[in-house]
Amino acid sequence: MVDTNWLLLNGTILFEIIGTLAFALSGLIEAARKKLDLVGMAMVSGLAAFGGGTLRDILLDRRPFFWFENDIWVWIIIAICLGSLLFMRSRHLEPTERAMQWPDAIGLGAFTAGGTQLALNAGVPAVISVIMGVLTAIFGGVLRDIVVNEIPKAFSDHIPYAVIAFTGGWVVVGLNLLNADAFVAVAIGAIFTIVLRVLALLFGWRLPIWKI
Amino acid sequence: MVDTNWLLLNGTILFEIIGTLAFALSGLIEAARKKLDLVGMAMVSGLAAFGGGTLRDILLDRRPFFWFENDIWVWIIIAICLGSLLFMRSRHLEPTERAMQWPDAIGLGAFTAGGTQLALNAGVPAVISVIMGVLTAIFGGVLRDIVVNEIPKAFSDHIPYAVIAFTGGWVVVGLNLLNADAFVAVAIGAIFTIVLRVLALLFGWRLPIWKI
Amino acid sequence: MVDTNWLLLNGTILFEIIGTLAFALSGLIEAARKKLDLVGMAMVSGLAAFGGGTLRDILLDRRPFFWFENDIWVWIIIAICLGSLLFMRSRHLEPTERAMQWPDAIGLGAFTAGGTQLALNAGVPAVISVIMGVLTAIFGGVLRDIVVNEIPKAFSDHIPYAVIAFTGGWVVVGLNLLNADAFVAVAIGAIFTIVLRVLALLFGWRLPIWKI
Repeated sequence: MVDTNWLLLNGTILFEIIGTLAFALSGLIEAARKKLDLVGMAMVSGLAAFGGGTLRDILLDRRPFFWFENDIWVWIIIAICLGSLLFMRSRHLEPTERAMQWPDAIGLGAFTAGGTQLALNAGVPAVISVIMGVLTAIFGGVLRDIVVNEIPKAFSDHIPYAVIAFTGGWVVVGLNLLNADAFVAVAIGAIFTIVLRVLALLFGWRLPIWKI
Repeated sequence: MVDTNWLLLNGTILFEIIGTLAFALSGLIEAARKKLDLVGMAMVSGLAAFGGGTLRDILLDRRPFFWFENDIWVWIIIAICLGSLLFMRSRHLEPTERAMQWPDAIGLGAFTAGGTQLALNAGVPAVISVIMGVLTAIFGGVLRDIVVNEIPKAFSDHIPYAVIAFTGGWVVVGLNLLNADAFVAVAIGAIFTIVLRVLALLFGWRLPIWKI
Repeated sequence: MVDTNWLLLNGTILFEIIGTLAFALSGLIEAARKKLDLVGMAMVSGLAAFGGGTLRDILLDRRPFFWFENDIWVWIIIAICLGSLLFMRSRHLEPTERAMQWPDAIGLGAFTAGGTQLALNAGVPAVISVIMGVLTAIFGGVLRDIVVNEIPKAFSDHIPYAVIAFTGGWVVVGLNLLNADAFVAVAIGAIFTIVLRVLALLFGWRLPIWKI
């Protein structure tokens, strides 16, 4: 019989790995679009992958950062950048970006739920914890867009993304109030967020339009 | 008889509330101009309102942040964003922005004086304290402008704003050297800054022009 | 007989002074190009000069910052800004920028080597230390470019800059592994980086082109 706890724990870790790779690739694609050089590619990829979690840790005064302790990830990103410099061509950008939206949804769920739980553990109020979760998930992409001189997509494209993360963060808060184990709260919050995001993509949900 | 201390203390708090609202609204207007979605509106408003103080606290290594302890403000900003999504129209933007310059002057004074005093209390040198005061007052707006992909107005519009904050910060430093109570120094520094800013707006003062 | 240690130590300090001035001037020139006002000039100059080291210190959780302890530098930057407002003209920008690339190379070396060593002393892994060195050297310029609404030159101009810093950081790491004194490691790492950068400029080296 499969142990549920084992499944939830390792599932969450797997989700985080998939999400980190998807976020790093989103940075790489943006860097390629703007014809940045190898350094720019690596920096924007790293920013997209770790920027959100690093900002959260600075705000919560947590150390060490994930990438300080897991420096293997720095090598992985450098390797991906070198590899795509060799093998990626202009015609790959569009389809890669479209394919990325599914693993990106997984990252959205994993980072939101994990970030919210970390903030709750640090003892900050519920709404701030949810915002920490949202920042973890979206701020890598926001920093990526700022560096390549675009208005952040997460703020402007009217497809529910951060709003879904916001909802998912409250699921984590609610499960904590119900005294669920932290890893159960994270796993359910992550799955909830991922499912909602996939539904938004499949059915083309839109945020209410600003009547201007 | 009205107690002067009571008046100064509560006056400063009132000034900070007015300033925070004015800064949040400046973010909202900028987000509306760029047709950001609800999330973008809330994020840019929050950044404009709390970005300066948060940066100052990160630089001074102070915790917790104002908005961590006063999470009611997060709800206020979300409510303002939802409200303006319902009721604000394109024709409101220009007049709202013009009306905002007076409460914004109050925020400039309150945040500069408060930020300078906090830095002095933390024991940093006078000129650094003044710069912390200036950053508290202007960096929310600077981050707002960076996110919506504009050159920060505080750096480019040649109307004295940060320079006035810089002057007001020195008033706070001077009063501390004269052994004034901290809250008196903050109140006088804030009023000095506000008056100077209002005069600059009324008489159309300009910074010396760069001869290029 | 000249004492080698004395020479290395003071040489490194001299290099840092030259580099800081070069970085500050790069901010000033960019601010002048964008016709920023006096405040913008001072802010962008300060960001270019101290932004990289400050980011490194925030990431490593080091306090106080260099410019908090050496507030004379704040006055120097204000003086340079006032001076160039009086004396700098449009026709000075281009030649000043070209002349700056040599002291800038010195800054690249000094900040990379110094930043890498500080990170190693803080006990972070080798690759992270090298990245901290690179961030120290390049992120002032990156922040300068973001504020004036440009894609960071360090990420986009295909002339080896950060890549050279990355190489120089590994020299510092290698010398530490060989149990060299810290100041020897910094001095040799700095000189190595400077020489490589000067060669790149003299011979027009380019980063491999992204085939898109």
